[in-house]
Amino acid sequence: MILFPGTSPSGAHSEPWTFVVVEDKATKSKIREVVEQEEYVNYDRRMGDKWVQDLKFVRTTHEKSYLDDAPYLIVVFKQPNSTSKDGRRQPHYYYEVSTAIACGFLVMAIHNAGLVTVTTTPMNAGGAIREFLGRPENEKVMLLLPIGYPAEGAEVPDIARKPLGDILVWK
Amino acid sequence: MILFPGTSPSGAHSEPWTFVVVEDKATKSKIREVVEQEEYVNYDRRMGDKWVQDLKFVRTTHEKSYLDDAPYLIVVFKQPNSTSKDGRRQPHYYYEVSTAIACGFLVMAIHNAGLVTVTTTPMNAGGAIREFLGRPENEKVMLLLPIGYPAEGAEVPDIARKPLGDILVWK
Repeated sequence: MILFPGTSPSGAHSEPWTFVVVEDKATKSKIREVVEQEEYVNYDRRMGDKWVQDLKFVRTTHEKSYLDDAPYLIVVFKQPNSTSKDGRRQPHYYYEVSTAIACGFLVMAIHNAGLVTVTTTPMNAGGAIREFLGRPENEKVMLLLPIGYPAEGAEVPDIARKPLGDILVWK
Repeated sequence: MILFPGTSPSGAHSEPWTFVVVEDKATKSKIREVVEQEEYVNYDRRMGDKWVQDLKFVRTTHEKSYLDDAPYLIVVFKQPNSTSKDGRRQPHYYYEVSTAIACGFLVMAIHNAGLVTVTTTPMNAGGAIREFLGRPENEKVMLLLPIGYPAEGAEVPDIARKPLGDILVWK
């Protein structure tokens, strides 16, 4: 499943990504704890009323039980740069866009395997998650994807998509 | 082909993307002209020697004949915000990551249709391309994807991928 996003295109072929698959229960719980702490602050005061209102329709809160429930979490790191064996720092051009395109490939691979996920951004918790996972400082958390089979009776928001005419323009 | 990236996840379901498919020859030529002008400056002096060296292995230059040759170009725009019917500005959370994930979906759709593309970033030419295409100011060019069948005798760089152990970590 990780081989597939590894075939994604990237700026100057830098492949600026790391996929950490978390199966260990204690590590998942630590991630949940820090995400919930930061999300509590996000919802309570950091992000403001407009943000809270804009998210109401998906009925999310700071509570993230799925981080314990999912059998696996995939934490996707982007790498703004790397250091070569002779100690020179190499910038990774377009590292954010490249890693996000690879995340598109990853979501496809997850669905193709008959599993489900949700693309979450652990806002303000990235640094702590990086430390829990022992990743180096040149890696930054981009996405946190819980994966597994849908829970029995799982429901998803009944949201519409923009019609094709709103996203496609012919010239 | 554009319906598929339209199913991509996005921050607060903002769907912050527009896909402009360019078939008109004169428009493709205008895009090529401005891209080549800007790329000439990028290679010649704007980006510096290190950038030029880092790209040597793919043997790209400022010359972009594929922008005329490809039967279609897809210009992907990201939308930092939008304006509602009652005139209020709506920020699009994570618009860049969201649009790039959708681009991952789009690349998959292109390959799935038996076509080929290359993910290019028309550096410093985005504003002019936006104007040629008559797109509003809240849209920014993210990627420029020429699509079609491979040219006869087409070759691609023989580049390796990082081994799985370099991109996958288990915890």
